[in-house]
Amino acid sequence: MQFTKGHGTGNDFVIIPDPDGGLTLTPALVAGLCDRRFGVGADGVLRVIRSAAHPDAARYAPDAEWFMDYWNADGSVAEMCGNGARVFVRYLLATGLTDGPELPVATRAGLVRARVDRGEISVRMRRPRLSEGAVARVGGRDFAGTAVEVGNPHLVCPVPPDVRLDDLDLTRAPGFAAARFPAGVNVEFVEPVGSPSGSPEPVAAAGPVGAAGPVGAAATDAHVRMRVYERGSAETLSCGTGACAVAAVALRERGRETGTVTVDVPGGRLTVTIEEAACWLAGPAVLVAAGEVNPTALPR
Amino acid sequence: MQFTKGHGTGNDFVIIPDPDGGLTLTPALVAGLCDRRFGVGADGVLRVIRSAAHPDAARYAPDAEWFMDYWNADGSVAEMCGNGARVFVRYLLATGLTDGPELPVATRAGLVRARVDRGEISVRMRRPRLSEGAVARVGGRDFAGTAVEVGNPHLVCPVPPDVRLDDLDLTRAPGFAAARFPAGVNVEFVEPVGSPSGSPEPVAAAGPVGAAGPVGAAATDAHVRMRVYERGSAETLSCGTGACAVAAVALRERGRETGTVTVDVPGGRLTVTIEEAACWLAGPAVLVAAGEVNPTALPR
Repeated sequence: MQFTKGHGTGNDFVIIPDPDGGLTLTPALVAGLCDRRFGVGADGVLRVIRSAAHPDAARYAPDAEWFMDYWNADGSVAEMCGNGARVFVRYLLATGLTDGPELPVATRAGLVRARVDRGEISVRMRRPRLSEGAVARVGGRDFAGTAVEVGNPHLVCPVPPDVRLDDLDLTRAPGFAAARFPAGVNVEFVEPVGSPSGSPEPVAAAGPVGAAGPVGAAATDAHVRMRVYERGSAETLSCGTGACAVAAVALRERGRETGTVTVDVPGGRLTVTIEEAACWLAGPAVLVAAGEVNPTALPR
Repeated sequence: MQFTKGHGTGNDFVIIPDPDGGLTLTPALVAGLCDRRFGVGADGVLRVIRSAAHPDAARYAPDAEWFMDYWNADGSVAEMCGNGARVFVRYLLATGLTDGPELPVATRAGLVRARVDRGEISVRMRRPRLSEGAVARVGGRDFAGTAVEVGNPHLVCPVPPDVRLDDLDLTRAPGFAAARFPAGVNVEFVEPVGSPSGSPEPVAAAGPVGAAGPVGAAATDAHVRMRVYERGSAETLSCGTGACAVAAVALRERGRETGTVTVDVPGGRLTVTIEEAACWLAGPAVLVAAGEVNPTALPR
């Protein structure tokens, strides 16, 4: 079985090309591929399949040539993944399956628009919707935050000045009111990069970045760093919808409804642009390796 | 750059074929290859190179055709890795670089003998040397153990009957007397499988196993389960020298100096045979995927 491995700001994927839908993906096969010791290892699988060859594409987004058949590492199917969509488009471009610079991609969350710009790949996400405040608890301390809906639920908590973002212990899930988030919530902790007075920003605030390199943050309306604890998972290096939620809160703190925010995640740098009717998530998407995997050698 | 990914009981490796020594491996390249999000991901790199093409082979073990140039995931060079040697031999066999069923492998720890037997691969390790007792501390409780030297230092702690092996919190390093182990120590916790009276053993005690499948433990002199916290690293799925140390202690508890012990590690099942002058480590070694990696896409 052919595969490619790639990542977007450290959110990594096994890409399985299957243009005509000849493969049978099962939860066990996906979990085996994603196993980091016994398999190839990744956060999820992206099957590259023509929309005409997959019933879900016809159901959710029949108008795009390619369907992103996205699976989580645990073998469950998911609607959408912002970083995954960016890596998916990188693969289509690298293998000549599309020309770009703009293209639609079918997902279970509907049609997603993507574009290539200066080596980075952007995808159009849902515009974040801010709602009431809520509290996350870490290490015995409460952090006040804002609930944000980006297709999935987020709780964005700015870190007070007396706490360093890097000092938060996210080896365990933050506490939150279960009645407030009955389906769980992704929790983001955020601090500004550079001082509010506009003095120069520290250099190299971001973690490792892909070969495409980071885009400068000079021209954006805000620059923040975030860490995220993903619902049902753990702390991760990056979360695309989380970056969109964080950007929306950062803009509101500056009295704005639209604008562009540089969001440094542990795995690199993302740029979020919030418009009247959409939210664009931009950043590097890198293909690292390609070859063949032996399905019979995977754990079952 | 060509690569193969494989594992032995969950101890995984990126194998880089370089028969004539044309590649330049650097610590940064090795660390990038082993990065689990930004690279291919592994516990270490095994470069496959002819002894004649590597100066270290001439220095430590000039008599074998192939040299296992082993690097840790952090980019440092290491002498030897028992599971790595088994995967190395699997690669030589699978690619026709050797015929087997017995062969010598050059390592920085000297010449290592290997053999293939019923689908498993065995390597000849140093015979463990038991020394005095010492104590490891986990979760505020002291566990009495035995210090064992297997080329590297180990502390083997049988778990008392009132503690379940699975309940130990090994998310942090166990405490030990630094004066006793100035270079650090790998700590193993052990419990018997089945009752001492010889009643039937529980089925499926081992974790996931490779495609080769586990070998039955019926004919061995003891059957134990272990968990290991590796020096300078973390809890891992398997440790070959640790399994040898554990087997030596299990035999001594039964009044023996030689014999065969089935050792279940979190990543599968190993069989250790201790003879008068040697120790054989046997188990599955599986190749999962192969292809090409783009070094320019790796983190630097």
